[in-house]
This record gives sequence, structure tokens and C-alpha cells, in this order.
Amino acid sequence: MKKMTYQLPKFTREEVLEMDRKYNVHSWSAQNALKNIIPVEKSEGIYFWDYNGKRYADMCSQLVNMNLGHGNQQIIDAIKQQAEDLCFIAPGQAVGIRAALAKKIIEHAPEGMTRVFFTNGGADSNENAIKMARQASGKQKVLSMYRSYHGATITAGNVSGDSRRFAAEIGGSAPGVVHFFGPFPYREEIEFESEEALTEFYLKMLRKQIIAEGHNNIAAIILETVIGANGVILPPKGYLAGIRALCDEYDIFMICDEVMAGFGRTGTWFAVDNWNVSPDMITFAKGVNSGYVQLGGVIMNEKVASHFDDNALQCGLTYQGHPLACASAYASIEYFEQNNVLDNVQKVGKVLGECLEELAKKHACVGEVRYIGLFSAIDLVKNKETKEPIAEYAIDTTGNQKKVVAKCKELGFYTYGRDNCIQICPPLIITEEELREQMKVLDEVLTWADNEFCK
Amino acid sequence: MKKMTYQLPKFTREEVLEMDRKYNVHSWSAQNALKNIIPVEKSEGIYFWDYNGKRYADMCSQLVNMNLGHGNQQIIDAIKQQAEDLCFIAPGQAVGIRAALAKKIIEHAPEGMTRVFFTNGGADSNENAIKMARQASGKQKVLSMYRSYHGATITAGNVSGDSRRFAAEIGGSAPGVVHFFGPFPYREEIEFESEEALTEFYLKMLRKQIIAEGHNNIAAIILETVIGANGVILPPKGYLAGIRALCDEYDIFMICDEVMAGFGRTGTWFAVDNWNVSPDMITFAKGVNSGYVQLGGVIMNEKVASHFDDNALQCGLTYQGHPLACASAYASIEYFEQNNVLDNVQKVGKVLGECLEELAKKHACVGEVRYIGLFSAIDLVKNKETKEPIAEYAIDTTGNQKKVVAKCKELGFYTYGRDNCIQICPPLIITEEELREQMKVLDEVLTWADNEFCK
Ligand SMILES: Cc1ncc(COP(=O)(O)O)c(C=O)c1O
Ligand SMILES: Cc1ncc(COP(=O)(O)O)c(C=O)c1O
Repeated sequence: MKKMTYQLPKFTREEVLEMDRKYNVHSWSAQNALKNIIPVEKSEGIYFWDYNGKRYADMCSQLVNMNLGHGNQQIIDAIKQQAEDLCFIAPGQAVGIRAALAKKIIEHAPEGMTRVFFTNGGADSNENAIKMARQASGKQKVLSMYRSYHGATITAGNVSGDSRRFAAEIGGSAPGVVHFFGPFPYREEIEFESEEALTEFYLKMLRKQIIAEGHNNIAAIILETVIGANGVILPPKGYLAGIRALCDEYDIFMICDEVMAGFGRTGTWFAVDNWNVSPDMITFAKGVNSGYVQLGGVIMNEKVASHFDDNALQCGLTYQGHPLACASAYASIEYFEQNNVLDNVQKVGKVLGECLEELAKKHACVGEVRYIGLFSAIDLVKNKETKEPIAEYAIDTTGNQKKVVAKCKELGFYTYGRDNCIQICPPLIITEEELREQMKVLDEVLTWADNEFCK
Repeated sequence: MKKMTYQLPKFTREEVLEMDRKYNVHSWSAQNALKNIIPVEKSEGIYFWDYNGKRYADMCSQLVNMNLGHGNQQIIDAIKQQAEDLCFIAPGQAVGIRAALAKKIIEHAPEGMTRVFFTNGGADSNENAIKMARQASGKQKVLSMYRSYHGATITAGNVSGDSRRFAAEIGGSAPGVVHFFGPFPYREEIEFESEEALTEFYLKMLRKQIIAEGHNNIAAIILETVIGANGVILPPKGYLAGIRALCDEYDIFMICDEVMAGFGRTGTWFAVDNWNVSPDMITFAKGVNSGYVQLGGVIMNEKVASHFDDNALQCGLTYQGHPLACASAYASIEYFEQNNVLDNVQKVGKVLGECLEELAKKHACVGEVRYIGLFSAIDLVKNKETKEPIAEYAIDTTGNQKKVVAKCKELGFYTYGRDNCIQICPPLIITEEELREQMKVLDEVLTWADNEFCK
């Protein structure tokens, strides 16, 4: 390795906070409300530390993206090598690591998926998947699910189904975007006699909506395989296969957004693997390389890809397939392979599920726990019978969930939530001991929450 | 430094090409048409090499983004340090290098600009600037210029004014997007008696269009300070100041897209500095760190920023303000400062201008040369009198410009073009000697083009 001459500057806690307050604009917040921002000094494994030496267990893998946790030396080494070797080259050229990464991703992708288009993150992977679906089909409409999240560029925002959509709709909703309701077993308006009945109802409703929207005008149906940020909502038995069948019947592209659920989070390479479904496109980001360098993309099957053999793909980004990002992802996937990370997810995920079920039994404020692999959320309620949430979906004004998150943080358990749910999605390398230690902290927080919300 | 144990794999030329053909999907192309893709083995300074040892002078800085060229050791060192130190942390936290970079950018930004929101690239910087303008103004419409390019996510694509927009419009144009014509002195439909008269005409037309669109409904006017990809079209004297005045008069945010023109490309930190104009927002990417890690962003003044002091900013990306990207940009800006890169741009840029003027005089196929700093394009014509382009704007079917680019490439002069123009935008570290050597190659290509197109 060459000797380093350049040195990045170091800053004190006070300098960091002052510069940050003065010059940075933070997302999803009023800047004056950012009073308790954490100045992060270092991170390692499942932990990070502030400048006062306070340790936080990263129980949400930052934004459910650091699947291999902090400071993974293999990924860091790959970044350092690629930085020296060939840090950037434009998408038009062929580069070993970019091509090799595409190959590696395809090796782990569901059967039938053959090629990869790389992007910089989740939102633009969905923007590009939608553009591809429209170009390849010549059709316009995109059906997406309420409670989904697909990113915050304007169209990805419009396609999303949660309240982050509203700001993207100033100026009118993006053309061709239509929402439908998917199943959410815990919060249905009527009772279904079985999971099968629930699935059947929602598939029948979706078919009706496809017809009502003009089945010949629909380019794609996009959905999160497992709804992530809005509370880890799993598809009921048969639902994904039913959507696949509807897409086949009406010649609609099926796009599964696995930006959050993909790359091991659910204990399989892709979340669709749990239900044996192969969509036409999978969009990914986050877990592909734990966010060490920005990377996202679209995995596609030949039905999509072959359209662009002779028709120009009208998509492009300057940084598409960034070599540094590709190198970090390559190393990350090899780490999964060499260290049986999926086995750990299944093993520790089982413990997580058991712990969550215990908490659900014990605490008045826990309406439901939902989990698969190391992907889980707690649905917090004021009353188990009525299921009244501690904060109302999309229109909350209480800030109750933020109070729970603040309590967690106080005790060194770092996570985030939306509406009335909080995420429990630790790095996939977490050990059973580390998990059990943190679940005790969570138990304490929920005891506090019982008193706070369930009087 | 820690010892490395992990090693990225190496591939042969054949392996790279085969994997690339099989697994990657390339942008802006029919995949079967990608016969002459360059498998890149290494790069350094203004050059890169294929696996056969053929050297290419990178006369377009890849996608006019590698302002400091290839293999800049200072940026590489910064990446390696930051990778070890703190590779990623979510946008919600405060991080030294992110805050320090925002401060550094503001120090070089036009007067009045105070804060930075980071993104991953050019398209999403524009998507976010538009969202901010709409949120802060409560208004909807965005006026943008034909011949501009703002990226390929769906709304950025719609806002763009070149033919890459069309694919983003399948499904209908994004709501609130309105285009206007700006000045293009070389290709006006009537003759103006002076630059001032040209400016006045276009400002009057724009005012008329603002009124015709409902001046109270317009959130922003977005334009490239210097139109880049569509042929380096400079604003005539007074034009930018006139837009600033119109924006003030009608309370419209002025957004200057400097994704390509910013960070030294024109010989000043920002292109607006050449005309002493301070917009409300500047969007950037590319030159901020030469693309060593993906980075973009929005620089804003207090009129924009202060709105988000007490109103939540409804924008966000997982990778926003990525520490690794920020570190690389910090090192890059320090490199500019320490090595007087702007002086070099002005000095070598002057030589570039002289060489281009000579070529324009000598060659029948050169209709016009346009340049500022190291940002230039050649407008190729069949006939100097009629100005008939070798390829028609937006509807070309001849592929003539691609032939010129292929000829350049054959001779080791790497660049790209659009329609009838080709870009000459070398890394800003190019020496006078290196430039003169390459201009000789270009001379040879243009002699060939004279014969090919100007019979
Ligand atoms: C399912 C899903 N899709 C898309 C996105 C957007 O990704 P990004 O923030 O990288 O744009 C997210 C981010 O949380 C996500 O969870
Ligand atoms: C002026 C301008 N704006 C925006 C973009 C889009 O940037 P990106 O490709 O990083 O999305 C470009 C890219 O060439 C550009 O030149």
C-alpha cells in the first residue's frame, strides 16, 4: 500500500454540532426540532458511540441498511483496494468488478432473473424500474400499495403509500399512479375466517381494480415484498403468488421492492424466496452492501431485459454501477457466503421472534409483534382489545411513538419508528447474547410505555 | 493502517467483456448495439487504458465529472481514511466530515447561500430542489428550459429539455412542468442586432410566459447556468441577472443546475460567479468530488432554508450526506485550494479557447466553438453558411455524431457528444502540453470530418 500523506481533519463534539446546526439541512425534520441529534464519533459491529462515549446498540441497522453492521473489515478492505485500483469510470465502459457483481447478484436472485441495472439508491431503483416497465410495455399506469414506501424522488414518492407521499404530490399526483389496499391482517375492518379467505378477498379486490383501471393500460404492479418502514407487514399465504398470477393474466410487470427486505434481512437472499415467487423485477439497495457506498439497482428477468436488446434503454445516471460501490457490494456478498450470515439470521431470528412474543404477552402496550428473520416491528396500542394505536396512522399529532423511541435511545437502544410502530431490525451479524441483552432494555422501555399509554 | 486480508478478484479482458455482456444492462443504449465497449483496466491523471494497453486521453472527464482526473491520491487517501473511520451513518446523526463539507461548500458558494442538503447525484439534487421550492412556496409549477438536462429520474427527466425527456414522459408529463425557450445565439431563427437585444427579447418572452402560466402558481425557474450536455451554450450578457430580477419580481425561486458547470469547470467555483448572480438554490454533483464516491446536493440561501427551520423538510434519502462521499469531496475541495486548480483552468482554458478558434477557422465542418474555462463543445455542420448540423437536434437518424466520436476514440481521444455537438471538457488538471497534444488529434479528426460531411 502506498503511504498516505493527506489527512482528513478531526473535529471536537462542539465543532461537529455547531457546523452541523449551521450548514447542514437534515431530512424529514424541521431543523429547529433537531435538538437531540447524536454526534457520532465511532462505530463497530452492532454499536456506535457518541463523543461522550455513550454506546448505542444499533437495533435498526441505521435505516435498516447496515445488514453487516458497522466497520466490516472485509468491505472496508474492498473499498480501499478499489479506490486505489479504479475508483470511478463511466457506465458506458466495461469494468470487471461491475460485471462480476452483476453476475454474483444473479447467482443469488430468484430463478429466471438474468440481468442487473445499477443505480445509487432505493428511490432511483424504483424510478428506473417504473421507466423500464413503461418502456418495455408501452403502457402507462403503475399500481402500488397503500402503506408501502418506495423513496422520496417525486415519482417514487407518489408511488409510495405512506404519508411521506403527500409532499411529493404538491403540484399534483404523478400521472398514472394508482393505489390499492393490500392485506394487513392485524388491522382489517372486518374479520376473515382464515388467512386464505383474507388473501382471496384482496386478490379479488385487486382484480376488480385492475379491470376498473383498464387492464390494458397497466405497465406494472409494484409492492414491497414485506412492507418495511410501515411496520413490517408480511404478505399472507398465497398473496404474492396471487399477484404473480394476476400479472401473468393481464400481462403486467410485477416489481418487488426489496430495498429493505432484500439481501438476507428475512433470512433468505431475497424476501420473495420465502414465498417462492419470481417477479419480473426486484429493486434493491441498502442491504446489498450495507450502505458502505451508495448502491441500488434493478434485477430483471428476460421478459424485461430482452426488450432492451434492440430498443434503447432510456435510463441513465452518471454514477450508475459505480466501481467503488460495486467492489463494496461484491465483498459484502462474499462475506455473507463465507460466514453463513443467512444461517445466523435464521438462528438469531428465531430467538428474536420468541423474545417478541414474550414481550407481546407481557406488555399491555404491545398490540402485535410482526417478524421474519431479523426484520421486525412492534405495533404499539393503548388497548389490546380495541387495538387503538398510540399514534394514528399518517395523521398523528401526539408524537407518542417519538417518545418511545426517545426512551429507547436514553437507554442506549437505538431505533426508529413510524406512526405507532417501532422497528427492531438489528444487523444480521448480531449474536444471540447481544440480542438478549438488548431485548431486556426493550422490556424496560415497554414497561414504561405500559404506564404511559395504557392507563 | 491495518493489514489487509480480503482481496478483490481480478479478471481478464475476456472475462470482463463476457460477464458484462451477460449480466449488466447499460444506460441509454440498445444492449446489442454495445459492440465497441471499452474494458477499462486502469486510469491515471487525464488518461485511462484498456486491457490491450491502448491509452485514451479522457477529453470529456468521463461524463464531465472527473474534474480532478483519475487516480487523485488525495481523494483516494481520504476515502481510505474515512472507510476505516466511519464509513456510513444515517442522515439523522451529526458527523464531522458531513458538517465540515457543508461549511466548506458554503465558503465557496455565492454570497447569500448558507446551507446544504446532500443527495447522491445530479438527478436527485434536482428532484429535491424542486420539492423544496414547492414546499417552501406552496406553489406548483416549475419552468425549465428547452435544451437543458437535469437527470433521468422521472420528474428530473420531465423537467429536462432534451430528447432524454421523452422516455420520462411515457405515462404523461409530470404535473406542473412547463418549458420555455432560452437564447442560443448561434441558432436563432431571426438575427438580433446585439447580444443585449437577444437577451432583452428572451427576457420579455419569459415574462410573458410567466404571466401566461399564472405568475402566482410558479414555484421555481430551473436552468443550467451554462447548458452542458446539449452543447455548452453560454447565457448571453445580462440574461442570468434578468432571470434573477424576474424571480424577485414574481417571488419565484431561481434554481441553477450546476451539476456539470459547478466546481471549477468554468474557471470559477460556481458558474454563476462568472455573471455575479446568486440564485436561491444551486444543485450540484459531478465536480464536487470528481465522482470518486456518488455525491450531489442542493445549496440554498436563507429564503429557502429558513422555511425549514419550523416546517418539516419532506425530503430524504437513506444515503444522504454519505460520510465516505463527504470525505472524498472535502479532500477534493482542499486539493482545489492547495493546488490552485482554478488558476490552471483559467490558464489552460485560454489555450483551449485559442486552439478551438483556430480549428473553427480551419475546418469546414466546425460551425461554432463555444467555451468557458475547460468547458467546451464543437457545433458540427455540413455547411458553415447554412449552419446545417451534421445531425438534427433530438430527431437525428444519421448517427453522424457517433461516427465522429468513434473516429476520436480510434485515435485515443475519448469524448462523447449529443446530436451534432461533441464535448471537449478535459480534467481541470490537464497541462498546456497535454492539451496541445490532444488538440492535434482533434485537428486530424476534423479533417476527416470535413471530407465526410462537407462535400
Ligand atoms: C422499501 C423501500 N424502498 C425504497 C426506499 C428508498 O430508498 P432510498 O432512501 O435509498 O432512496 C426505502 C428507504 O427506506 C425503502 O425502505
Ligand atoms: C446539468 C446536469 N444536471 C443533472 C444531471 C444528472 O446527473 P446524474 O446523472 O448524476 O443524475 C446531469 C448529468 O449529466 C447534468 O449534466
